[in-house]
Amino acid sequence: MENQWNEMYCLAKQWAKEAAERIKETFSEELQIQSKTSRKDIVTNVDKEIEQFFSRKLNETFPEHKMLGEEGIGHDLIDQKGIVWIIDPIDGTLNFVHQKRNFAISIGIYEDGIAKIGIIYDVMLDEMYHAMEGQGAFLNEQKLKKLQEIDIEESIIAMNTTWLLPNKLLPYEKAVSLVKSARGTRSFGSAAIEIASVAAGRVDAYMAVSLAPWDIAGGAVIIKEVGGLFTTIDGKILAGTESKTSLLVAKPGLHKQIIKTIKNP
Amino acid sequence: MENQWNEMYCLAKQWAKEAAERIKETFSEELQIQSKTSRKDIVTNVDKEIEQFFSRKLNETFPEHKMLGEEGIGHDLIDQKGIVWIIDPIDGTLNFVHQKRNFAISIGIYEDGIAKIGIIYDVMLDEMYHAMEGQGAFLNEQKLKKLQEIDIEESIIAMNTTWLLPNKLLPYEKAVSLVKSARGTRSFGSAAIEIASVAAGRVDAYMAVSLAPWDIAGGAVIIKEVGGLFTTIDGKILAGTESKTSLLVAKPGLHKQIIKTIKNP
Repeated sequence: MENQWNEMYCLAKQWAKEAAERIKETFSEELQIQSKTSRKDIVTNVDKEIEQFFSRKLNETFPEHKMLGEEGIGHDLIDQKGIVWIIDPIDGTLNFVHQKRNFAISIGIYEDGIAKIGIIYDVMLDEMYHAMEGQGAFLNEQKLKKLQEIDIEESIIAMNTTWLLPNKLLPYEKAVSLVKSARGTRSFGSAAIEIASVAAGRVDAYMAVSLAPWDIAGGAVIIKEVGGLFTTIDGKILAGTESKTSLLVAKPGLHKQIIKTIKNP
Repeated sequence: MENQWNEMYCLAKQWAKEAAERIKETFSEELQIQSKTSRKDIVTNVDKEIEQFFSRKLNETFPEHKMLGEEGIGHDLIDQKGIVWIIDPIDGTLNFVHQKRNFAISIGIYEDGIAKIGIIYDVMLDEMYHAMEGQGAFLNEQKLKKLQEIDIEESIIAMNTTWLLPNKLLPYEKAVSLVKSARGTRSFGSAAIEIASVAAGRVDAYMAVSLAPWDIAGGAVIIKEVGGLFTTIDGKILAGTESKTSLLVAKPGLHKQIIKTIKNP
């Protein structure tokens, strides 16, 4: 059984590399862009093609596994029994279209709803973040260090400007107080890369308003293995399979301070 | 005379490369970090050392030129007659300390207050943006294309969360309307890299609340050469030597739309 997990871990990374090569090839082809739920939510033919690539690989190699992909595969999945691959073929599609960088392939492999393997591959930087439960997290060949506590005053928080627009989760005054407390905020436009950046210590926290499983599943094990917190904005621990959720990923001490700053009446 | 400008252009790039090598060496040394005007504004021994490096090079090669550097050199400069090198040894010091990436060396060379040469060097990506007046702008060896018009609805705007905090320049309602109009916002934490990202078309605009000459001087010619606008948030054209200024860098059509969205009563 353990052997099969090692094989899945190895193949997931290999397929991500193959998918990345194909994505880079498409830079010289014409892109077809469509809007999905809103004009801010787009998909390209490349997202769809890469999702199909993973689906084909899985059908050939592990036909008994299920798959949930951003672009439609498995959206009728009703239970999480067995092994489920949750895949975002291109996380940060807008960056992919606009910048040809700052996008990632994200893969979370779950067994009965529990995260076992996580892969986040920043295609253009050739940075592969990966982790299997209990074995530590890695950036390419390098083992990532356990995250150390940091005070909010010293911290860089990745967050979208959305948090400062009128929203149901966070009153404006709290958001202002949070931004003022932190040393700085950043926004890269890819949840997967922002989660990975917390794991690598490049930012100290990342918070998002509303994400889907494919945005976050790849990060769950990686963050756990470096000792980070992976919760909703209220501090509720997330598996990474939740259907529409807020997200707060942070270093241990900072996580408590952010929630305190937000909740403080 | 033209020969001297070509020599300055060539040497500025060469010195930036040499400085970058030294900056990368310091990753294995212990960093000394100090606060400047506030805990959000920091400087390290490396910023200071690199500023001294440029000062030494200039004194040896062009002793008649003046220099204005972020870390103190030339802060007593009273006029802009003659040739002035405006240098930020490390733009994005917080990123340098925290991420070991996403920082840049920025060099603007002025004659009698007019921008002639601009260099922005993203050290870790080895991306050198450079331009000399009238000769086009380049990213490494590749000539950058003229910026095309884009609608605000399609645009990515680089802006800090500061714009959504209570501030004197932009009422909250206008900032909300701007963020909602754009397709997305980003924040990288280095003004120089954000300006360069506009030049490369990776983002469509960049706006900042309060910047100094060393933050922006390197970008002035680069943006001009690709046909972008380089103004205050009110649309007043900037030389890049202004002492504390807001900044709006944008593609031509978008520039008008952003100002309209902000001013719209």
